[in-house]
Amino acid sequence: MEIRALRSEDRPQWQALYDDYHRFYDRPDLPDAFFDQAFTRLIADDPSDFHGLVAEADGILLGLTHYVFHPHLWRPEGTCYLQDLYTAPDARGRGVARALIEAVYTAADRSGTPAVYWLTQETNYAGRMLYDRVGRQSGFIRYNRPL
Amino acid sequence: MEIRALRSEDRPQWQALYDDYHRFYDRPDLPDAFFDQAFTRLIADDPSDFHGLVAEADGILLGLTHYVFHPHLWRPEGTCYLQDLYTAPDARGRGVARALIEAVYTAADRSGTPAVYWLTQETNYAGRMLYDRVGRQSGFIRYNRPL
Amino acid sequence: MEIRALRSEDRPQWQALYDDYHRFYDRPDLPDAFFDQAFTRLIADDPSDFHGLVAEADGILLGLTHYVFHPHLWRPEGTCYLQDLYTAPDARGRGVARALIEAVYTAADRSGTPAVYWLTQETNYAGRMLYDRVGRQSGFIRYNRPL
Amino acid sequence: MEIRALRSEDRPQWQALYDDYHRFYDRPDLPDAFFDQAFTRLIADDPSDFHGLVAEADGILLGLTHYVFHPHLWRPEGTCYLQDLYTAPDARGRGVARALIEAVYTAADRSGTPAVYWLTQETNYAGRMLYDRVGRQSGFIRYNRPL
Repeated sequence: MEIRALRSEDRPQWQALYDDYHRFYDRPDLPDAFFDQAFTRLIADDPSDFHGLVAEADGILLGLTHYVFHPHLWRPEGTCYLQDLYTAPDARGRGVARALIEAVYTAADRSGTPAVYWLTQETNYAGRMLYDRVGRQSGFIRYNRPL
Repeated sequence: MEIRALRSEDRPQWQALYDDYHRFYDRPDLPDAFFDQAFTRLIADDPSDFHGLVAEADGILLGLTHYVFHPHLWRPEGTCYLQDLYTAPDARGRGVARALIEAVYTAADRSGTPAVYWLTQETNYAGRMLYDRVGRQSGFIRYNRPL
Repeated sequence: MEIRALRSEDRPQWQALYDDYHRFYDRPDLPDAFFDQAFTRLIADDPSDFHGLVAEADGILLGLTHYVFHPHLWRPEGTCYLQDLYTAPDARGRGVARALIEAVYTAADRSGTPAVYWLTQETNYAGRMLYDRVGRQSGFIRYNRPL
Repeated sequence: MEIRALRSEDRPQWQALYDDYHRFYDRPDLPDAFFDQAFTRLIADDPSDFHGLVAEADGILLGLTHYVFHPHLWRPEGTCYLQDLYTAPDARGRGVARALIEAVYTAADRSGTPAVYWLTQETNYAGRMLYDRVGRQSGFIRYNRPL
């Protein structure tokens, strides 16, 4: 398994994975335009926008992660937000998610922005089994503006 | 009470409030350079960096909030992160925090980025009494990279 | 303010308080028979059933608590479950709830069953401000059989 | 796999399982007297004390549960507290814990005390995957008297 940056030729496999991810979070039937736009941004290599990493083995994409650096008022160097993380169901148990998170850590170090955070549902038990090992639960919870 | 943008002449009162805020979160004794840098960023009017709002009555600052717009991969327009929120202890119970949050909502609408979120400690009971009224608990919790 | 055992003559004031308590938890309109039965049990002085304590000042009941001892397999002496705790709205801020909890601690010690626990809604912020001072959040959450 | 009441001849296997359970919760090295006392109580068939159920296949105990009925002031019939639940590590994934919980439901129904509850650590992810299916998270958290 190799962790590497997302590439143009990954588009079909990437879309299949990212669509599964959104279905998992009850957002089915996203239009192609949604994926077009997200993929274009990920591929654009804009340092102020999202970056994509994928886990690949034998030409098959096993998982993906998307992260972005954004300003933080207490940290002049900013912070890194790992927004999306997904492993294909038949690739679970092989350390894909852990390898992707650790690759984001490495990318964050390389950018001089070592602080990385992510958000997860309190009931994402399978995810939290991993997150408690590679991360630290902060005790902070998220509130949203009702829209 | 008026909610307005932070201004250069607010520096002494702003620093007193922001220092209290950090002490509340167990970050005492921040150096002046920390406040210099944060204030410079807030005043710079850089659309991609933090903005500051304050609540003022009779020339006295009663509270502050700092927010930033950052990219979101699912929302082309991005999202608004309300990072800091503080009310002076002797101004509590007057609706300062609510007015500041609502002013961020208004600013977010004006920027075409209506989604606003913030994070709070699970045990910030006084804050959550308000947040449950002006916001919605998302069920998401934050994990940090251990550094 | 005095903390003392519930007495027969407390019935009218006790029912008013206990009814408010149930309304607070979205159980309005409980029939008189409910209160009859509960009061009879509380007054009966059966060591294996519930006990009641009230806070009184100038003949007015300001608050109540009900507790029971039940077996615990790891503790031969059993444990004490503080089930109900309520302070009249206009008596808040006077330490009523704290005094009632501490009186249960004293009663538990006297019974040779010093372990005391209670359950509260995660969003009972006002309660938890007190509970974090007089108790310790255990990290345990309650599951119910769906009925 | 059969779910049945604990029997005298189960003592050696029961103790091995129950000791593992306590080690899992960081209570190692409990003395034999602890197990003597608990087993005696479980076998005694005292309706006001703890009951034990085990899952057995081919003479091997795969799991155990211990429950007790205790008074509840709002429910004249009382409530059932499922205190201990454990599956041997090499018997996981076979539905042992689910079968044990459901057997407690059946026993509770038979006793005319259908309400059953249990407590679990917020971070017991493997357990909660099951509990969210057979039970309902109540939103209540436990506080303990500090001892």
